[in-house]
Amino acid sequence: MAGVDGGILFPAERLRGWTEEIMQRVGVDRQDAVLLTDSMIEANLRGVDTHGITRMLCVYVERIEKGVMSAATRLDVVREKASTVLIDCHNSIGQMGAAKAMTMTIEKAAHTGVAFSAVSHSNHYGMAAYWAMRALPRGMIGFSSTNAPAAMAPTGGRTALFGTNPFAVAIPADRELPVVLDLATTVVARGRINLYAKQDRPLEPGWAFDDRGVPTTDPHAALRGLLAPIGGYKGYGIALAIDFICGILTGSNYGAHFPGFLADNMVEPTDVGSVFAAVNVESFMEPAEFTAAVDRAVEEIRNSAKAEGAERIYIPGEIEFATRAERLAKGIPIPSPVVDDFVSLGNRLGVPFPR
Amino acid sequence: MAGVDGGILFPAERLRGWTEEIMQRVGVDRQDAVLLTDSMIEANLRGVDTHGITRMLCVYVERIEKGVMSAATRLDVVREKASTVLIDCHNSIGQMGAAKAMTMTIEKAAHTGVAFSAVSHSNHYGMAAYWAMRALPRGMIGFSSTNAPAAMAPTGGRTALFGTNPFAVAIPADRELPVVLDLATTVVARGRINLYAKQDRPLEPGWAFDDRGVPTTDPHAALRGLLAPIGGYKGYGIALAIDFICGILTGSNYGAHFPGFLADNMVEPTDVGSVFAAVNVESFMEPAEFTAAVDRAVEEIRNSAKAEGAERIYIPGEIEFATRAERLAKGIPIPSPVVDDFVSLGNRLGVPFPR
Repeated sequence: MAGVDGGILFPAERLRGWTEEIMQRVGVDRQDAVLLTDSMIEANLRGVDTHGITRMLCVYVERIEKGVMSAATRLDVVREKASTVLIDCHNSIGQMGAAKAMTMTIEKAAHTGVAFSAVSHSNHYGMAAYWAMRALPRGMIGFSSTNAPAAMAPTGGRTALFGTNPFAVAIPADRELPVVLDLATTVVARGRINLYAKQDRPLEPGWAFDDRGVPTTDPHAALRGLLAPIGGYKGYGIALAIDFICGILTGSNYGAHFPGFLADNMVEPTDVGSVFAAVNVESFMEPAEFTAAVDRAVEEIRNSAKAEGAERIYIPGEIEFATRAERLAKGIPIPSPVVDDFVSLGNRLGVPFPR
Repeated sequence: MAGVDGGILFPAERLRGWTEEIMQRVGVDRQDAVLLTDSMIEANLRGVDTHGITRMLCVYVERIEKGVMSAATRLDVVREKASTVLIDCHNSIGQMGAAKAMTMTIEKAAHTGVAFSAVSHSNHYGMAAYWAMRALPRGMIGFSSTNAPAAMAPTGGRTALFGTNPFAVAIPADRELPVVLDLATTVVARGRINLYAKQDRPLEPGWAFDDRGVPTTDPHAALRGLLAPIGGYKGYGIALAIDFICGILTGSNYGAHFPGFLADNMVEPTDVGSVFAAVNVESFMEPAEFTAAVDRAVEEIRNSAKAEGAERIYIPGEIEFATRAERLAKGIPIPSPVVDDFVSLGNRLGVPFPR
């Protein structure tokens, strides 16, 4: 879980309105600001604060102000077939390329059964699940993945060559919540290592390597070192496949060629590539029959015998939906230092943060 | 690695000819026997002996002789769109459904850019990589996955609800070998636990759970218990998504509904579902430009700094290609007890095993 413990609670709609104004002040079109803001607020609502305004707003603003990311959206369809499209994002905001790609993917899948699209020369696109979930209202299975600057070495190596390279899958249900899987190919995120380092707390085995490529439980050595992939060489393979498909196939950055990410590099564009897919359920089964079967399978999993010491079994995405309901009711927690940042940002741009 | 240590070496072509004869003796058409045999011999050549004749031949023969799997192939296209197809395998040999599905997938992807197909009511289809790699000669990226009888519990549970649910991705290169990723969503295969149990050797932490759902390093407790998914809840999520897409979307078995697998159940059909996809590289980039870029990326990974104690960095699939070259030259190792089984089988069916 990437949630923030503690912090001051703000109603989502108040944060939304303010964020939309902020993005427009730095030159983003109104409708683009609305979409970008929604992707961040949804991340916060789902407890994925690493992709919410909490972490991303000031970064996006700074990148735009420094000219490292374009405020104006320019998207060109470079190649297109009945079931595929390649969109050049021209260093526009990543969410803009993703939205157009996923919209086209869903339209194409409605006609041909499946579609797969890619965005090149893009930026951080937010939470992978946000894009996969766009297939759900159309009764489709959605998929998205992106590459990212290197944080992980290949098995046997000690040079960071692969990002956390996340991917998301969204599967529609009927009465049950949709199944929404969204995971990085590292065992834990760098943010978690940071947290342990601040607390001088040893990491669990299998989370990280030091800068010699040797497994470590020292959080400080891990910060100078590398994140471990899930399942060892298996996660390395998954991260590599995602990097090759998102990065190389789109002609974007890959491997060690990234100039650093987000706050770590305010000089060069990130130039990531992202991919999107949708499978039209009705090309395989009556949609109502499918979602009813998903409901039954979800119930079977939830009601299966618990492991000793486990209180319940969660379906992928279930915790995020619960967090969303809670945060819609009670508000989104923003840590005090971030509130201070928002107050400064708001004052500087003439859009006071609504405390 | 699923390779067999030791054993008697036999030339691949001698094993191939004998296996083709054996399959025909139990009622499989000549051309189907050739394909099925090739899928097994290729697995042996690649060192994936768990999917070679070593483990599968006697099992397939017994299933056919007991009427649990059909010797005759019957494949019906149930639903078809420009980029998708659903094929009912009618309990035919899994490789037959897979071959037709992957052939149609590649043809469709050549026209529309991408295609995704599924086979329902199928059987064990061999090595996932075998199907993904069929996209390579066409310059496409291939993908395949299948569900399988339950061996893994959901996170927090202690009932086996998901199979090892493997998937494979094959990416073409130019001068370099293609990248071929083929992995189960469990940290290790059950075969590895078996091996450790025979040697009374403790498992590594994180490999398995006992029957209460508690992590264990006791191989005997693990055999009565459950395999651990890669990356904990992440691997559970991947296995679930594969089960839902391969099993539920095709109307085949899923979750705990499997009647046991292969040698463990010689009474009922397995009824698995499998999926296949191909992405036509030229829908995104000039193929020669892509494969040259893959070559460069592969070289960058291979030549990156080694971890302390590591001798080299392998690209996914590289070890299997090396094993294939070695076994083509020196022969495929068959353990002595398996040779005895082959001799008995050959004598019984009137096709003496060529020792």
